[in-house]
Amino acid sequence: MPKKISILGSTGSIGRNALKVVDNLKSDFEIIYLTANTNYQLLIEQALRYKPKAVGLVESKNAKEVESQLNKINVEVLTGKEGLIEISKRNDVDLVLNALVGIAGMKPTLNALNAGKNVALSNKESLVMAGQLVKNAQQKKGAKLYPVDSEHSAIWQCLQGENKTDVSKLILTGSGGPFRERNINTFSEITPEEALKHPNWNMGNKITIDSATMMNKGLEIIEAYWLFDFGVEEIDIVVHPQSIIHSMIELQDGSVKAQLGVPDMKVPIQYALTYPRHKPADWERLDLIKLGKMTFEEPDYERFPSIKLAFDSLKKLGTTPAVLNIANEFAVYRFLNNEIKFTDIPKIVEQACGKHDWMESPTLSDLQNLIGWSKDFVKSYK
Amino acid sequence: MPKKISILGSTGSIGRNALKVVDNLKSDFEIIYLTANTNYQLLIEQALRYKPKAVGLVESKNAKEVESQLNKINVEVLTGKEGLIEISKRNDVDLVLNALVGIAGMKPTLNALNAGKNVALSNKESLVMAGQLVKNAQQKKGAKLYPVDSEHSAIWQCLQGENKTDVSKLILTGSGGPFRERNINTFSEITPEEALKHPNWNMGNKITIDSATMMNKGLEIIEAYWLFDFGVEEIDIVVHPQSIIHSMIELQDGSVKAQLGVPDMKVPIQYALTYPRHKPADWERLDLIKLGKMTFEEPDYERFPSIKLAFDSLKKLGTTPAVLNIANEFAVYRFLNNEIKFTDIPKIVEQACGKHDWMESPTLSDLQNLIGWSKDFVKSYK
Repeated sequence: MPKKISILGSTGSIGRNALKVVDNLKSDFEIIYLTANTNYQLLIEQALRYKPKAVGLVESKNAKEVESQLNKINVEVLTGKEGLIEISKRNDVDLVLNALVGIAGMKPTLNALNAGKNVALSNKESLVMAGQLVKNAQQKKGAKLYPVDSEHSAIWQCLQGENKTDVSKLILTGSGGPFRERNINTFSEITPEEALKHPNWNMGNKITIDSATMMNKGLEIIEAYWLFDFGVEEIDIVVHPQSIIHSMIELQDGSVKAQLGVPDMKVPIQYALTYPRHKPADWERLDLIKLGKMTFEEPDYERFPSIKLAFDSLKKLGTTPAVLNIANEFAVYRFLNNEIKFTDIPKIVEQACGKHDWMESPTLSDLQNLIGWSKDFVKSYK
Repeated sequence: MPKKISILGSTGSIGRNALKVVDNLKSDFEIIYLTANTNYQLLIEQALRYKPKAVGLVESKNAKEVESQLNKINVEVLTGKEGLIEISKRNDVDLVLNALVGIAGMKPTLNALNAGKNVALSNKESLVMAGQLVKNAQQKKGAKLYPVDSEHSAIWQCLQGENKTDVSKLILTGSGGPFRERNINTFSEITPEEALKHPNWNMGNKITIDSATMMNKGLEIIEAYWLFDFGVEEIDIVVHPQSIIHSMIELQDGSVKAQLGVPDMKVPIQYALTYPRHKPADWERLDLIKLGKMTFEEPDYERFPSIKLAFDSLKKLGTTPAVLNIANEFAVYRFLNNEIKFTDIPKIVEQACGKHDWMESPTLSDLQNLIGWSKDFVKSYK
């Protein structure tokens, strides 16, 4: 029986790669739902090819065009945020791949878990913003999270067959981004164009900026905390510019296990879809001899204050990681619009974390309110 | 209940490290047997400390001294090769650690497996010489082999939790030995003293010379073949001078899993004794930042013809790997005695493999005969 899957965010970078995985293992999967934010043309193309039951299009202005194309092949079309929410609640699937970008991904993760569905999670905001709510939903429904991020997939792969109590440390690797060696005195002059040239992975714009500030690594620490249930002191970061070791675990006898590979998101995506199996694929193989060397450095907390902000937010917990994440997201958009400097991003985040009304156990509606507050806070920053 | 263990070869490098592991996890183990080849003083010391039921001493000329010391504490003393053989057959233990060096380790492995005992195997000759006989004994008795070699332990650790059919390749790493960068034209002048300076691991003399010729890696290929049941084409070698990645597996989706650590034999020994758990130990931890870099190279088959000889022997199977191993062992001893050149070692091995009377399914007595033939062959080499 093919696995029935729903792909939320099928026209983005992760979504498109997920469909390549589906192409690779055709008979293993049946696509039931696809959703897009704005890219209605690609959504139509995907729907014509994979024939889902329904598609969702968040930006509804092109809904007519989508409907006229897909009604012929009997594909239901849902629109607006409500359409996405509706699709994320449906339980006629085996697995929901949440490949949505940003805060918009949080509610669909909770919906899918509350519907008792396992979620292959690429959307890190779900855990960063609502880690405790996600855990609660998982526990109540017995639904599982399968990490899609390359770092968390690496840790997940390394943990297979191990007794969790034997694991002493999670070691996340990060490339260090494009500004690892740039003179720190010129950081305030970094332009969006420069920051978008990421050396190793081919990703969306928001995530690429997060990689340049290393907030990406910060968010991953928080994600790892919730995914694997390890303490802040048990999570380390190592800068590894080649991005070949995707992350590691250290066991209490000193043995270290690592997962390696060429930087290709299809590998962790496929693993999340085929778990616990590693199914065949003829993608590029890692050639260590051709690679020649791997290097390792300490993260530079002066250049990249975002990492420390993330660690600090995890020590405070409650609403702090959520505010860190929201303020960062809006600050990144302001940076991409050339409204603020690169170095303003962590400043805004730090101020927002310090100034918001902290709560210990925010509900979903508390988090929604925080989004409004943080957005206004970031907007007002000059 | 503590695990009852027998350590064959307790005064050698692996044996002494195994006792450090026992010290580390005191209440987990009870030492039932210890055996030594010649080092009777250390054997006495160990027996006084760990109070086994019996000890074995192969070289019997100091047996009186051992008996007089150990009779007071009621420790039985067995002597000669027969004593070792007798101890290897006893079944009042949970696990036999075979840390014997060289050909002498083969029969004790078979004895322990035939007694239905799991064997933590450091003695690679058991598999290289008698791979098929070992497999037969395992299958008949349902006894397991736990690798102790750092490379095979790494592969074993990486295989945990994986489906064997998902694994496409085993990748053994090797330091390349002390002569990786030495001018090949001076190889015939290499002295035993130079060859005994091994950069990474602290091992016995025979194994250190094997590491210098890279025959060690060749023997490990054969060992991996029998331990993990992978084909010759599915086993690769990568030279990694820092010896931090101890070996890897490649899965069929392109994901690679590696086991890493500082070069410390206590880690794989402890894992073999505590499998499937990684129990606490406060040994030196791997610090990738301090390490800074890892490098990878192709093995140089011209400098190190032994690797190719080993691959070839595996394609022929039958008696060929056994002759490869025996001829190598005696050639190494002749080299250590300054009787032959460093470059003669692979030449002798190649000739012995080519000239012996090949048999498809040698019995133990066939192998014993081959030992005599090979010894004579190596002796006659000028």
